[in-house]
Amino acid sequence: MNAEIVAVGTELLLGQIVNTNAQYIAQGCAGIGLNVYYQTVVGDNWDRIKEAFSIASSRADVVICTGGLGPTRDDLTKDALADYLGLEMTVHEPSLRNIEEAFRNRGGLTENNARQANLIAGCDPLPNDNGLAVGVALTLNGKHYILLPGPPREMRLMFDRYALPWLKTKMDGERPLFSKMLKFAGIGESLLENRLLDLIDGQDDPTIAPYAKEGETAIRLTTRASSAKEAEEKLAATEAEIRRRAGDHLFAEEDIPLEAAVVQLLKQKGKTAALAESCTGGMVSELLTSVPGSSAVLRGSFVSYTNEMKQAMLGVPKTLLEGEGAPGAVSPETAAAMAAGALERTGADFAVSITGVAGPGPSEGKPEGLVYIGVAVRGGGVETERLQYSGGRETVRIRAAKYALYRLWQLAKD
Amino acid sequence: MNAEIVAVGTELLLGQIVNTNAQYIAQGCAGIGLNVYYQTVVGDNWDRIKEAFSIASSRADVVICTGGLGPTRDDLTKDALADYLGLEMTVHEPSLRNIEEAFRNRGGLTENNARQANLIAGCDPLPNDNGLAVGVALTLNGKHYILLPGPPREMRLMFDRYALPWLKTKMDGERPLFSKMLKFAGIGESLLENRLLDLIDGQDDPTIAPYAKEGETAIRLTTRASSAKEAEEKLAATEAEIRRRAGDHLFAEEDIPLEAAVVQLLKQKGKTAALAESCTGGMVSELLTSVPGSSAVLRGSFVSYTNEMKQAMLGVPKTLLEGEGAPGAVSPETAAAMAAGALERTGADFAVSITGVAGPGPSEGKPEGLVYIGVAVRGGGVETERLQYSGGRETVRIRAAKYALYRLWQLAKD
Repeated sequence: MNAEIVAVGTELLLGQIVNTNAQYIAQGCAGIGLNVYYQTVVGDNWDRIKEAFSIASSRADVVICTGGLGPTRDDLTKDALADYLGLEMTVHEPSLRNIEEAFRNRGGLTENNARQANLIAGCDPLPNDNGLAVGVALTLNGKHYILLPGPPREMRLMFDRYALPWLKTKMDGERPLFSKMLKFAGIGESLLENRLLDLIDGQDDPTIAPYAKEGETAIRLTTRASSAKEAEEKLAATEAEIRRRAGDHLFAEEDIPLEAAVVQLLKQKGKTAALAESCTGGMVSELLTSVPGSSAVLRGSFVSYTNEMKQAMLGVPKTLLEGEGAPGAVSPETAAAMAAGALERTGADFAVSITGVAGPGPSEGKPEGLVYIGVAVRGGGVETERLQYSGGRETVRIRAAKYALYRLWQLAKD
Repeated sequence: MNAEIVAVGTELLLGQIVNTNAQYIAQGCAGIGLNVYYQTVVGDNWDRIKEAFSIASSRADVVICTGGLGPTRDDLTKDALADYLGLEMTVHEPSLRNIEEAFRNRGGLTENNARQANLIAGCDPLPNDNGLAVGVALTLNGKHYILLPGPPREMRLMFDRYALPWLKTKMDGERPLFSKMLKFAGIGESLLENRLLDLIDGQDDPTIAPYAKEGETAIRLTTRASSAKEAEEKLAATEAEIRRRAGDHLFAEEDIPLEAAVVQLLKQKGKTAALAESCTGGMVSELLTSVPGSSAVLRGSFVSYTNEMKQAMLGVPKTLLEGEGAPGAVSPETAAAMAAGALERTGADFAVSITGVAGPGPSEGKPEGLVYIGVAVRGGGVETERLQYSGGRETVRIRAAKYALYRLWQLAKD
């Protein structure tokens, strides 16, 4: 079985709100192994809503629609579906009583509010535990239709509590879908894909799908199975082969960002970190501190954006930064001095520094995208690494930041 | 003319990401008076992408597609559109040279990366200033097609800088829409809206539409006119009235983020800034350094996440932080000491500090969302301000960060 999600609302078409309802419903469908092939957004327009139902019915087994169940004249979804299917409208008496009750203390019921109790004749009503508009579930000519309200608080509860269980009863006999996410860092999407190309192309079960996020790559393994145990066995061999080829970059077996994995690992090992950021301007610190509980592992960070501040904040020798023949701010020597300075001044176990040319354009004779990462370990030495990125200022910054996090993850892992 | 937005990506259908691209494009279309009647999401599937193009072409004048321009075998959009339209593929030589250049230092170009330089024969290429995949604009049989990359950073720049101007040239004959964006900070959307409510509800021309962004609010004034001069005259009276009511929060007359306005203003005044961040963890610095040229105005920042580091990095007295009756890390006293310390240690003209409880949950008896901002001026005094936010860790952090930027903007303006 496959599904289409239809969201009704002119405010979506105007870009006033983002379609988080579609994401929520899509996740729920994925969770029960119901494939979503299309999502559609249509405005509060009678003809176009009916056309959307017509197209969705022609290409999906299940049509899940959200929005347009409210009290105003813009709310057309139930009537449009009834009209499209040639069904009559009726009143859901329990919902009407709910609405009357709700308005008893608000100066009485208006006619348009009563509309929220309307239902399509013969459907299964879906209760709204967070609002007044009743939802719809019905099957006609082998197609299943679900109408949910638009406000996320109402939609989510109705979907989880009533629509998903109703859908599951229609899916008996299909084997559910199981999937596992593997997250990689410190390796580009295309390089990772190259390592796995024969697997990605050559096998259907489990399927292997790569997704690039900025500075991270995710691989999703998916299979159908009769039980979680069977799925685990089917995924295990593929996962082992992927680990053999790229395990050095695998930082999580769930969909968490790299910074969350770093905080988790540092906590687990009882280690602390410090940062000295130049071209990333605080981005690494910002990512780490976006993780709740990061205060236990991040001691502090220095954003030393100018040469003067590299000296004052981190004790980078002036001779490295200025004068003829000096390596300059963007150099392995400066990266090393920054990392060593951050380690010493914070007393952390690990310090990572980033200095580079974010762009636009070259700086002091160094090309845009050239970045040096420095790594200092308490009681250990200092190492540096040279990277060359492209794609503009923001790409250079985010890639360098994620690479710094990757190095921190490596340090903590060892 | 009307448009359909098509987003390509299985990760959208699986609910792994939310379709913010559709919202961004929808807002841009609304801004030039191009009606969007449908949005569609389709997976990385050859037949279904072609079907989506077919349906969109049948019901829209403009098809704006995002996603599927990348290097992997999942990225099918360009080839699918060419196949649907019966056009050949070609190579965009400047893009190929960009890609070769980008990979020169990364161990050479792989074939899949070169695919990002492919174009549909006869189209107008849309440059990608934030990445490698070139975009497409073309007109065939009276229908206009635009293909944009999926990563939001690449998509947004290409859309604003190249696709929208291209679209505007296709809209000749319609009396053009003129709009002006006013940006506000340091005031919430609903508060700003309340100040302007009678204008927003009471007048049709120019229309006044508020858009909330995190920590910033935009007001778009829109009118149709025969010339820029006529539009300017029509907008002037409304703008003057808005300025009268909320001019103290108006930081830009174009759609730039607050951090860009701050960098611009500091540069213009020849002033420098420093930051001491606790709960925002580097976010203010990261925002400022995202602006090219920020190195001229940001001297440096301290991310002093722990009490120990507040002492070591910024010289906050231990007696403020610890012991019975001490005001604690989240207090006006600590905010003031952090700002004073940052000013002294960097020699900047202005220093702003942020200390608060980002959450989740309360900390040391202080509620989630409580934030103190400290402001220190060279040769001047130190002031603090108490703020109370809600909405969870990320909302608290971004609001506090934007408020700190707003204070910096105020300091520079005076």
